[in-house]
Amino acid sequence: MAFSERVSRLKSSLIREILAAAQKPQVMSFAGGLPAEVMLPTLNWDGMPLSMGQYGMSEGEPQLRELLAAEARGLGIACQASQVMVVSGSQQTLDLAAKLYIDKGSKILLEGPTYLAALQIFQLFGADCLTVQLEADGPDLKALRNSLEQHRPSFVYLIPTFQNPSAVRYSDAKREAVAALLDEFGVTLIEDEPYRELTFDGGSAQPIVSRLKKASWIYTGTVSKTLLPGLRVGYLIASPDLFPHLLKLKQSADLHTNRVGQWQAMQWIGTEKYQRHLVELRSFYRERRDAFQAALERHFSELADWQIPQGGLFFWLTLKQPLDTRTLLAPALDQDIAFMPGEPFFSEPDNHHGHLRLNFSHIDPARLDEGLKRLAAVVRQAQHAQAA
Amino acid sequence: MAFSERVSRLKSSLIREILAAAQKPQVMSFAGGLPAEVMLPTLNWDGMPLSMGQYGMSEGEPQLRELLAAEARGLGIACQASQVMVVSGSQQTLDLAAKLYIDKGSKILLEGPTYLAALQIFQLFGADCLTVQLEADGPDLKALRNSLEQHRPSFVYLIPTFQNPSAVRYSDAKREAVAALLDEFGVTLIEDEPYRELTFDGGSAQPIVSRLKKASWIYTGTVSKTLLPGLRVGYLIASPDLFPHLLKLKQSADLHTNRVGQWQAMQWIGTEKYQRHLVELRSFYRERRDAFQAALERHFSELADWQIPQGGLFFWLTLKQPLDTRTLLAPALDQDIAFMPGEPFFSEPDNHHGHLRLNFSHIDPARLDEGLKRLAAVVRQAQHAQAA
Repeated sequence: MAFSERVSRLKSSLIREILAAAQKPQVMSFAGGLPAEVMLPTLNWDGMPLSMGQYGMSEGEPQLRELLAAEARGLGIACQASQVMVVSGSQQTLDLAAKLYIDKGSKILLEGPTYLAALQIFQLFGADCLTVQLEADGPDLKALRNSLEQHRPSFVYLIPTFQNPSAVRYSDAKREAVAALLDEFGVTLIEDEPYRELTFDGGSAQPIVSRLKKASWIYTGTVSKTLLPGLRVGYLIASPDLFPHLLKLKQSADLHTNRVGQWQAMQWIGTEKYQRHLVELRSFYRERRDAFQAALERHFSELADWQIPQGGLFFWLTLKQPLDTRTLLAPALDQDIAFMPGEPFFSEPDNHHGHLRLNFSHIDPARLDEGLKRLAAVVRQAQHAQAA
Repeated sequence: MAFSERVSRLKSSLIREILAAAQKPQVMSFAGGLPAEVMLPTLNWDGMPLSMGQYGMSEGEPQLRELLAAEARGLGIACQASQVMVVSGSQQTLDLAAKLYIDKGSKILLEGPTYLAALQIFQLFGADCLTVQLEADGPDLKALRNSLEQHRPSFVYLIPTFQNPSAVRYSDAKREAVAALLDEFGVTLIEDEPYRELTFDGGSAQPIVSRLKKASWIYTGTVSKTLLPGLRVGYLIASPDLFPHLLKLKQSADLHTNRVGQWQAMQWIGTEKYQRHLVELRSFYRERRDAFQAALERHFSELADWQIPQGGLFFWLTLKQPLDTRTLLAPALDQDIAFMPGEPFFSEPDNHHGHLRLNFSHIDPARLDEGLKRLAAVVRQAQHAQAA
């Protein structure tokens, strides 16, 4: 065997294993970030032109790019359709960004905690992943400045709105401050926003890329959380200096994104029908969030601390008595409970014990209380064993 | 800017530029490998379950994997569904293979000529691309043995059936000999077969991977040439030692392939309807091939030599008086003609002047004769200019 050096960094994917275990119908899953199936819209394929079956443009369907650019301008991002590329889900943006920026040992800067599948792809390409700690309203600005100054990372990767896993939404002040720092040091921003539309309080959250004056940027979004993940349709919008490179990387990865999914997305983006769907979705998930909060209070108030998420799909629990939550997985699955341990969301997992990410969107409400009760029992048992 | 070192190898993509130019309605295009639009089947979406909108398995839809494994066993490839992964077109298989095998300077062995988009992605990852020359019935076996012995490449990439661009189909004897050599030296085979079903004489072409006894292998196919490229549904089948690595790489690239396209492919693969469609497709392309051959004889018999392709989508012309065919592009486009120069299909383009790849499947038959006439005039003019 003569595999590449990079393969030595290809970890067994914990999330894949947990999701595979969670497929069993008896398992109550708080893992994953799956939309609720009852909220998946029915698709209408009437009128899709036959030409959608032919090879398409690497950039994506022109009409969809126009629609996405218009949406982005609505958020304050000054951009043209020529800066929009349709990709096969947000994960692909991360793959393209890794190819564009990361050599073995390249320094990049991420939030701690951050999205674990981003960590995986960046580490696969050999990045040295530096971390800036997240506070309740965004990153620690002093630490951010220090890290930018000292390390001049190739890029900063941020999820400023309802972050996965922490549910943190940056304040307006921190958004401004982060933009100013990135401009000052000329460091590229990758801003990942899968959860922007899933807001429960309607609070504003103008993208950081829209506040940049000089730094290069990639903004990435998806229809996976608002329409259908199975379409595998996401998009990136990039500053004009980066776009041509990203386009060639996209072409060499898979030629272009599937056109039937793109056509379907075009039937929604920018329409009143889509706005109505989003309103229903927010209301539905808000109710699930509230029910989850109530059940958490019943079963976890003595065990953990947490913020009530104002959007997104996750609760992020911090155990009052920390332990390696990865050790809870096997006993939880024995009780037909799946959840995400917090450690894999940090580039140095062993330094960050004691968090759990719990998805509230997908669990059957009838099984929610029983599920959290069993999970709390697993935590208690482990803490007793640890104390003994 | 602190791009990765790899970006310095990101070439301006000639094929993208040519295809972009060929979008203009007045252009007669012999470039690309596009299916004829009149042969794209109409899609029926009745009965697609809502769950196809949800996140799916990285491996692909279980039913589709079973269907593809059954097809492969029909070709003589001993495999199970557990070895099948659905990907976003064959190009993605090449991206995953590059990630699995290629560090900067890794030696890999390709046919000369070979598929230019394979060259692009392998070179992007920094491969040292060695070449074994193609003869009319497959590779030069002595050169292949020497190269395997001397260089021990990380893998060999072959397109044994109606190769793109040369249309070569390996003989049974060469398939056996290649398999024996790969077993002898323990070198992985990547066998790319997008054109297998587009056969005009029904001649047999049992895959080389089915003849391997020891070497690792990846077999890759697609529905792009037989159903719809716009679905972006392809597949790979790998020896069990490689599959787990490829699966993790797929997950980190885009989580999974779009499910609506996979569901559509499931409605066809293994059905009588699909077999009837393939029969129609072969007959349709055979007629186009014959018409193209007749027009080539009228306009190119003094200018070039070629073999009549027994399958696939391309004629591969060798000019009797070689010149750098890339210099023909601009004058051809001035005449509203697009074609593919031969040089980019070689890892050392400047050592291989004088070939043209002409696609015969997509051109409007009413414009075929005029198109080849104009292209021949462009060649003649360049040769006169060169001689002067």
